[in-house]
Amino acid sequence: MQNFEYCNRTKIIFGRGTENQAGSETAQYTKRILLHHSGGSSVRSGLIDRVKTSLKNAGVEWVELDGVQPNPRLSLVYKGIEIVKKEKLELVFAVGGGSVIDSSKAIALGAVNEGDVWGFYERKKITGKALPVAAIVTIPAAGSESSISSVITDERGPWKRGVNLECTRPVFSILNPELTYTLPSYQTACGIADMLAHIMERYFTKEPHVELTDELCEGAMRAIIRNARTIFAGGEKNYHARAEIMWAGALAHNNLLSTGRISDWASHGMEHELTAFFGIAHGAGLSILFPAWIRYNIKEDTPRLARFAAKVWGVDGAFYDYEQAALEGVFRMENFFRSIGLPVKFADAKLDPARIGEMARRAVIFGPLGNYRKLEQEDVEAIYRIAAE
Amino acid sequence: MQNFEYCNRTKIIFGRGTENQAGSETAQYTKRILLHHSGGSSVRSGLIDRVKTSLKNAGVEWVELDGVQPNPRLSLVYKGIEIVKKEKLELVFAVGGGSVIDSSKAIALGAVNEGDVWGFYERKKITGKALPVAAIVTIPAAGSESSISSVITDERGPWKRGVNLECTRPVFSILNPELTYTLPSYQTACGIADMLAHIMERYFTKEPHVELTDELCEGAMRAIIRNARTIFAGGEKNYHARAEIMWAGALAHNNLLSTGRISDWASHGMEHELTAFFGIAHGAGLSILFPAWIRYNIKEDTPRLARFAAKVWGVDGAFYDYEQAALEGVFRMENFFRSIGLPVKFADAKLDPARIGEMARRAVIFGPLGNYRKLEQEDVEAIYRIAAE
Repeated sequence: MQNFEYCNRTKIIFGRGTENQAGSETAQYTKRILLHHSGGSSVRSGLIDRVKTSLKNAGVEWVELDGVQPNPRLSLVYKGIEIVKKEKLELVFAVGGGSVIDSSKAIALGAVNEGDVWGFYERKKITGKALPVAAIVTIPAAGSESSISSVITDERGPWKRGVNLECTRPVFSILNPELTYTLPSYQTACGIADMLAHIMERYFTKEPHVELTDELCEGAMRAIIRNARTIFAGGEKNYHARAEIMWAGALAHNNLLSTGRISDWASHGMEHELTAFFGIAHGAGLSILFPAWIRYNIKEDTPRLARFAAKVWGVDGAFYDYEQAALEGVFRMENFFRSIGLPVKFADAKLDPARIGEMARRAVIFGPLGNYRKLEQEDVEAIYRIAAE
Repeated sequence: MQNFEYCNRTKIIFGRGTENQAGSETAQYTKRILLHHSGGSSVRSGLIDRVKTSLKNAGVEWVELDGVQPNPRLSLVYKGIEIVKKEKLELVFAVGGGSVIDSSKAIALGAVNEGDVWGFYERKKITGKALPVAAIVTIPAAGSESSISSVITDERGPWKRGVNLECTRPVFSILNPELTYTLPSYQTACGIADMLAHIMERYFTKEPHVELTDELCEGAMRAIIRNARTIFAGGEKNYHARAEIMWAGALAHNNLLSTGRISDWASHGMEHELTAFFGIAHGAGLSILFPAWIRYNIKEDTPRLARFAAKVWGVDGAFYDYEQAALEGVFRMENFFRSIGLPVKFADAKLDPARIGEMARRAVIFGPLGNYRKLEQEDVEAIYRIAAE
């Protein structure tokens, strides 16, 4: 086990009706906020109105900025920073999924640091200060509600880049599973792939003595898979299945599950190019790439891949050698993704394999990807090709 | 799943050599502290000297108060409060096990609140303020290093009472598994029973939809049991086994594992009387009482008890009915406790069954115990009698 530091200061407020605490929780920090959202379903569902009522009752004033899109755009971040500075706002309140929360984190950074906020995403500079961020989560997926991560797309590239800064961790996040009842099933599925990927990125490590976190990772993945099946078997409004998924989504990315281990993150790096080139949803890109990543690495600590197959996908190790067991695990993972409507090959999502060379070149522009096995450009290209078979 | 709030602000600094960060971490809060410890093994091992060097290098001044005993005494707490007030100290730094940390929390409470600190333990008053507490952990057991709990004994009763106050949660805790190499094996075993009990108290719930936290609890318990076996099979200085146990001990009691569920805590309530009457170590009292508690409750949600037997103790459900499976789980738990040198019956620890009536009367003085099943005086007495069979 590696030495580590672990601390997660986000206050999680979880359960039915908790969005009505938005005002009272916010008022503990300030009475002037930016209310940031997509302007889409959260308005139509009446959620934004309920939030405004809660804010008003607590004496909190807001300026509204909507228009956040999936793969949130740098241009809107710039606009948010301008508003926050001009109106002297003191907290950025996100209502939405990971895109809205990530956009809020970027605004919170840009509002109190000199110079271009994009510099943080290009890893040209770091900082310890940002405005406080708070969130109401409507899509369990990115885990941004208690993480230090933010991923923004500069549409001029397009460049999709992520940064991890402690100062952007939300001070509180409100998670009401009822808010996810009406998510389109494709978004639900993409979120499930994203949270599974967040755990797998941590699970696949060469660190040999991490039994406790192995157990926690495996248990969380099993709980996600079982409850996903419940939701997709007509349980869209099953509160408890939605609750298990929602809490798992936050835990998947709050760093508890990576304590003492070196995480991988190659698949996320490769996926960012898929999104940048084709605009595919992040979770769908991951359901295509993760199986391919395992197939490419099948000789790389095969016992761990076989354990993953046994503990997470129920493969009986007694009937296979390690490699066969590991491959059976990949088959089952692909079947699971397909069963909830996700692509597992380029063709399923109509992605053009002709772009593979270009994507592989760009994926490694900051250096090789991953830690389980360092992936150079030719490795990345080979994995894209497996996914395109 | 129940609505819940979850937040744990303790910064965990984990790994080899981390005690040398004591000074630099403390200096972020203040330069005047109370250094609180037992005066025993932590002095003999040279740990206290290393901590002082680290404090000195960071310009931190301290006043020292040693003498903490197992089941920490209220009289020493009063002395600590007096010193802190007189010397105008601003942080209580614990070096030791749960007793030292709990004593530090009590001092931190008493130093900044009017009136008798014991009032908090009698639940006659509450507070939101305390001096910051920090800790270096030498015994993985109580989980006090990142919990809001503190248990103190008023030796005049004797009364052993616990309180849970957010303001006493340590601001940082340093966990170096190497510091536990020289723990006497009985203390190691008691710690293991204590952390297993902390998880079991949370695991045994009537809340039906808590799959994610069920998985996390079961995984943590399996990791504890496996690594305990490694330590007791000659692995006293196996860094990784000690590390898994130490991290599990903190997670067992940081409340993540009880999110969304109603915890029980009857066994802890019953154990406090065992300690008060006989001075038995807390973990040894729990290894006696938890099996008895399950036996008494065998008809109480038997499927959950059987699941516990299957998932944690490897009982194959196919060969038993639920009740048989659950009982087989209890046998295995008792065997496990015995294998690491712990008592599982009154006679093993030479406890006098003649006191059972009196203990049962006192155990319920604040009302019935537990939530899995509410235990009245006659229930508590029956459980003590099972343990005394």
